[in-house]
Amino acid sequence: MSEIQATTTMDKIVSLSKRRGFIFQSSEIYGGLNSCWDYGPLGVELKNNVKQAWRRKVIQERDDMVGLDASILMHPRVWEASGHVAGFTDPLVDCKVCKQRFRADHLEGDKCPACGGELTEARQFNLMFKTFMGPVEDNAAVVYLRPETAQGIFVNFNNVQTTTRMKLPFGIAQVGKSFRNEITPGNFTFRTREFEQMEIEYFVKPGTDEQYHKEWIDRRFQWYLDLGITKERLRLREHAADELAHYAKGCFDIEYYFPMGWSELEGIANRTDFDLKRHAEYSGQRIDYFDQEANEHYVPYVIEPSAGADRGTLAFLLDAYHEEPDKDEVRVVLKLHRALAPYKVAILPLSKKEPLVAVAKEIEQELRKYWMVDYDDSKAIGRRYRRQDEIGTPYCVTIDFQSLEDKAVTVRDRDTMEQERIPMAELSKYLWEKLAW
Amino acid sequence: MSEIQATTTMDKIVSLSKRRGFIFQSSEIYGGLNSCWDYGPLGVELKNNVKQAWRRKVIQERDDMVGLDASILMHPRVWEASGHVAGFTDPLVDCKVCKQRFRADHLEGDKCPACGGELTEARQFNLMFKTFMGPVEDNAAVVYLRPETAQGIFVNFNNVQTTTRMKLPFGIAQVGKSFRNEITPGNFTFRTREFEQMEIEYFVKPGTDEQYHKEWIDRRFQWYLDLGITKERLRLREHAADELAHYAKGCFDIEYYFPMGWSELEGIANRTDFDLKRHAEYSGQRIDYFDQEANEHYVPYVIEPSAGADRGTLAFLLDAYHEEPDKDEVRVVLKLHRALAPYKVAILPLSKKEPLVAVAKEIEQELRKYWMVDYDDSKAIGRRYRRQDEIGTPYCVTIDFQSLEDKAVTVRDRDTMEQERIPMAELSKYLWEKLAW
Repeated sequence: MSEIQATTTMDKIVSLSKRRGFIFQSSEIYGGLNSCWDYGPLGVELKNNVKQAWRRKVIQERDDMVGLDASILMHPRVWEASGHVAGFTDPLVDCKVCKQRFRADHLEGDKCPACGGELTEARQFNLMFKTFMGPVEDNAAVVYLRPETAQGIFVNFNNVQTTTRMKLPFGIAQVGKSFRNEITPGNFTFRTREFEQMEIEYFVKPGTDEQYHKEWIDRRFQWYLDLGITKERLRLREHAADELAHYAKGCFDIEYYFPMGWSELEGIANRTDFDLKRHAEYSGQRIDYFDQEANEHYVPYVIEPSAGADRGTLAFLLDAYHEEPDKDEVRVVLKLHRALAPYKVAILPLSKKEPLVAVAKEIEQELRKYWMVDYDDSKAIGRRYRRQDEIGTPYCVTIDFQSLEDKAVTVRDRDTMEQERIPMAELSKYLWEKLAW
Repeated sequence: MSEIQATTTMDKIVSLSKRRGFIFQSSEIYGGLNSCWDYGPLGVELKNNVKQAWRRKVIQERDDMVGLDASILMHPRVWEASGHVAGFTDPLVDCKVCKQRFRADHLEGDKCPACGGELTEARQFNLMFKTFMGPVEDNAAVVYLRPETAQGIFVNFNNVQTTTRMKLPFGIAQVGKSFRNEITPGNFTFRTREFEQMEIEYFVKPGTDEQYHKEWIDRRFQWYLDLGITKERLRLREHAADELAHYAKGCFDIEYYFPMGWSELEGIANRTDFDLKRHAEYSGQRIDYFDQEANEHYVPYVIEPSAGADRGTLAFLLDAYHEEPDKDEVRVVLKLHRALAPYKVAILPLSKKEPLVAVAKEIEQELRKYWMVDYDDSKAIGRRYRRQDEIGTPYCVTIDFQSLEDKAVTVRDRDTMEQERIPMAELSKYLWEKLAW
């Protein structure tokens, strides 16, 4: 029986990320800011591609979904209605001896895990970041940085339904930053205090909720597989009854086998009518749906597939990582799906001399109309291939002196390392077909 | 001599935005949150298209530019080095009688503009939002929500230059949210406390800075024209010496003629070597560039084209607005550039009966692979055209009973209102050519 293995260690991915410009520590020259990360030139493309692949599948290709982009700062009453002011807390304890602080629900004994000292009673610590809006702190409004994008969708339910005239079932999808003052962030970009979510609220007629819950679980699981995640490292885990959030009737996590073990990529919850009802109650506004066929008003149930863009990006990066023997050395290659690869094509002229450079530049300009392209005229071709392999570029185009005569170039495939001679005039079309998905 | 006119009033655009789902007030069911706005189903597509058109021109099509996505929360020392902690302030006065608060630099007399009462002395009010990171407020680190994305680029200069091996001149471009606790926000999405920036820092050899400054001014001005802004409503304004920020050697604003008059869309400043030198000083790290040709180290100068994504989106929306006589009525049409239009195509079947619907749905599914598509089978075709005109959809495809026989559809152009019969098998190709830019 084969045991599941992570593709590599987190250290190797952290190191590759910094060396190649995927992810840097935030404010690194000042010693870093705990758990905040910056996406470098390659990272921003990879993460944008993840978000775009999500938007394409859940919005663009569907006739029952629309997008939304709500603000991070919202009215504080939103978080009273949602239950976050009262209940979005973690239990904290302090060590009376060494003064270190821990999450009570992560401790096994009742003594300090660091020094063995006595611990205080647990007290509740709210995870929302708060700030002050308006000119003077002492009388300004306290507002929160949203801890989830979901509430921006719920409070806009009427606005979206009215303007789009959508009929149930329909969904609203949103990508955006959220903030949680986590006590123990960690594991690189897996758990951070500032993070980006990709959330869907899919509104359905009560009674049909379990069927749609199942459909969305299957659809979202398949999305990760379609974008190249290895099946053995992906699983579905149902929440136990005592694990469910207060608003949820049922919840499934899509988990990936990270170097630290099985961890959540996305949660798909049946949030019932809890949120819409609470906002109706707290705002005094009517929030419901008129079903023309049934000639009745009701409050929809909602299925919520809620994914983390940062941990998704991290999983794609980890899963793409391969080390392959290459003669006496090791070839590191990121086998990223073509939809996700930061650069789609690299242009590698075999000389820095004219007229070869002019030809290479002309090809580069043509391809840049459609894709992110890298251009590299440094050193030996072998080292250049190795660099492109390590950053996941699916196709390398080499231009040699023969190209000046036969008007053709060599295209190398990252995964098979096979090379093909393609007429320059057909290069764009060739790549369009290869890169389509 | 003709006088410049705004295309329409702000009220009309606010009303259209809400009616059609471009922009809603944030937390509207709770009475709204001052100066915060949510992008609805059409608004999120429009704004995403603005950001994508910017990324395509300043990153994808250029070989001297790369992207970055730094975190919103940064180390507090960053804002000491940048000068924001000490100097990012507005002068505030209170009225001793009616207790209202004003910006001292916006007052004309020394009496309260509301009640004529006596005013307090001005005191400095810092515009950065602050919050507390870590488990307990009283001893947690004070961190700020970034007031500009620029500093995320400066502190990553070494990381980006090393990993990309770029040579001067080169630039780093970033899109992201920033926050300023403005005392007097207003004019819809023009001045808001939460806003999105599109910033470039273009690093050059000292001495060449004025030449590149000029190039970027021209290039950025042209970008707005290329995306359809009317030339008469766009102008360049040079900052007077007493208007320049402390770090700037020169600055030009690209201004648009909004309903409230000429207002800034984008500032293009020569920030010199101020920021990199300050971060080197404050962090104790070496931040400079080794010029191999000249065999010397120096600190680059930087040209900063800094654009507002929200006010850019608002300008595109305003400028696209047209009212045209149409028989006895008025046709409202958003003549948005095809790159920016939320939906590229609308599918309008002339009947809800089979087999016509099956054909329409098949065409819809095919087009959704490439573009955002609307599908509308409601009411009379005239009203459906009018709706698509009002949301700026460049092409409407109608499917009629004739289509079942001749395997062709009618494509209507939003701006000319001309109609063309196109074979279904050629529709995608026809639209690809029409929508290319």
